[in-house]
Amino acid sequence: MTIEFPPVEAPSEAVRQRAERRHATLTKPTGSLGRLEELGAWVAACQGECPPRPFTRPRVVVFAGDHGVARHGVSAYPSEVTGQMVANFLNGGAAVNVLANVAGATVRVVDTSVDGDTGVDEHKVRRASGSIDREDALTLEEAEQAVELGRRLADEEVDGGADLLIAGDMGIGNTTPAAVLIGVLTGSEPVAVVGRGTGIDDQGWMRKTAAIRDALRRARPVVSDPLRLLATSSGADIAAMAGFLAQAAVRRTPVVLDGVVSGAAAIVAEELAPGARKWWVAGHRSAEPSHALALNHLDLEPLIDFDLRLGEGSGAVAALPLVVMATRVLAEMATFESAGVSKRS
Amino acid sequence: MTIEFPPVEAPSEAVRQRAERRHATLTKPTGSLGRLEELGAWVAACQGECPPRPFTRPRVVVFAGDHGVARHGVSAYPSEVTGQMVANFLNGGAAVNVLANVAGATVRVVDTSVDGDTGVDEHKVRRASGSIDREDALTLEEAEQAVELGRRLADEEVDGGADLLIAGDMGIGNTTPAAVLIGVLTGSEPVAVVGRGTGIDDQGWMRKTAAIRDALRRARPVVSDPLRLLATSSGADIAAMAGFLAQAAVRRTPVVLDGVVSGAAAIVAEELAPGARKWWVAGHRSAEPSHALALNHLDLEPLIDFDLRLGEGSGAVAALPLVVMATRVLAEMATFESAGVSKRS
Repeated sequence: MTIEFPPVEAPSEAVRQRAERRHATLTKPTGSLGRLEELGAWVAACQGECPPRPFTRPRVVVFAGDHGVARHGVSAYPSEVTGQMVANFLNGGAAVNVLANVAGATVRVVDTSVDGDTGVDEHKVRRASGSIDREDALTLEEAEQAVELGRRLADEEVDGGADLLIAGDMGIGNTTPAAVLIGVLTGSEPVAVVGRGTGIDDQGWMRKTAAIRDALRRARPVVSDPLRLLATSSGADIAAMAGFLAQAAVRRTPVVLDGVVSGAAAIVAEELAPGARKWWVAGHRSAEPSHALALNHLDLEPLIDFDLRLGEGSGAVAALPLVVMATRVLAEMATFESAGVSKRS
Repeated sequence: MTIEFPPVEAPSEAVRQRAERRHATLTKPTGSLGRLEELGAWVAACQGECPPRPFTRPRVVVFAGDHGVARHGVSAYPSEVTGQMVANFLNGGAAVNVLANVAGATVRVVDTSVDGDTGVDEHKVRRASGSIDREDALTLEEAEQAVELGRRLADEEVDGGADLLIAGDMGIGNTTPAAVLIGVLTGSEPVAVVGRGTGIDDQGWMRKTAAIRDALRRARPVVSDPLRLLATSSGADIAAMAGFLAQAAVRRTPVVLDGVVSGAAAIVAEELAPGARKWWVAGHRSAEPSHALALNHLDLEPLIDFDLRLGEGSGAVAALPLVVMATRVLAEMATFESAGVSKRS
């Protein structure tokens, strides 16, 4: 059993260079918009078109799932919160909803593996994933099913007109598998990847570190096989996110990554579809210590550094206006010629 | 002759605490929105109201002026560009116009001291400011007139409904007076404050460093008198920005600061109206080395770090959506109670 993604092409280097040349004609000193210039050129390269088109349908898909390991005291919140938050997303009351309203994005929620009924369970892979410190998260069949689900969701969204994708997460306990995936793929020790998650106390931190240590031991033998790794150490939500992020790249659609769970899915997606990372920009650097390791591994520089640690896609959506602005500046500013402005002396 | 601002009160600490308490009731782990939580609480404290009101009229005022020192080879661009860029702002073709469109802000341009006719010169203080390496920028009367102008513009905008203010700059050569003001008020050497501005070459950098050295020598004797310092070492544009930023604080209106010119005006404004800085947030950290010194002096932490060095208010406007999002999250998210979400175990 295996998952195959077609080879990922890079965003167009020729268009990126065209964007750089266009930037030099706009009414500002060359390079004076710094990172906004790079970002705009990246969007143009992704779209294969310069000037780039303004985004019309930035889309957030939140992957909701429970994690067996949460039963063992690694989270500050009970697992029932996952399903309750799904209802909150559907009612528009969560942080990601409010942020998306400001940023001009829409939010979809998919229950991949919530341990209860959510009303959005048409894609459910199973009820909660296994406790990865002592058992596999998923069977190999379920892992494949979850990756395929993510791939199908990316296709659906892109076919439905989405021109920028964000993968959000909701799942009590999900920073534990995220830390394990990042730890095993970056060769890091448990204490380097464990974080406070939603805010555990010192005792919880010790339990979480022990769970990560045990889970890392189970993950290492399968580190070179991304599908087996997802089965052993992730969850249906994270496996689906990995498929989603890989397929976004296959479909040449730019992605803004969120925090540590999104980052964990991303480093596995890069294993599934090498080169996918060229289609991603890092929205932010999370307060979770392993996130910086994941970004470093993917060679991505975050747009903002706000000590966020919520997930849901919130940090990616917070950074989205910067991507929108970078795109619009490149497309809409006057040129020295059109505005009759003198160039350098 | 003197300028007196009434004592500046701080944003409401009681409301800030109310905002913190409200944040703890919203459907997310306490503190998980990091800097967005602090920012939202600051907006509420400025407004004196929690939940805070969404912004309805964020307003950018761009202060345009020429600088005599630009005649002495300290800039990569000729002075005529200042007036040409004013026309570009009025036509909506500049970076700040495009960014403001995305961020929901509007832009006004005021010619304080352009060395030519701009059609927006009803507030003109003079044509170009003196070359501060060898003469005063302004007479003391002009400095006072410029500060009063900035104060009046802030009043006009706030009376007209502006609920967030940004001061932008446009003026070939203006990073030289900015570096001098920051240098003298932070006790820094010329080489610590000189930067590449719009992109001067090595020879230009040497000329600029020498001009800053000479101007700093002229500035030091008047460092303790902000109005005399503005007359000696700024320009009508920067003096007006200082009055504008001080008055924004007097009028209890939050400000997003831009880059190095805005930062230079801000540190003088803090001298004119101590405590004004509590009403400001730093939009970004510019590529100009003296900007970090100014932010440090004002104890402000920038929202983004994008290597911007354009001015116009562009970096402040780029960061504005983050302030908007912070405000809306605090106002609009569901509470644990309203959404029926369980709290910590």
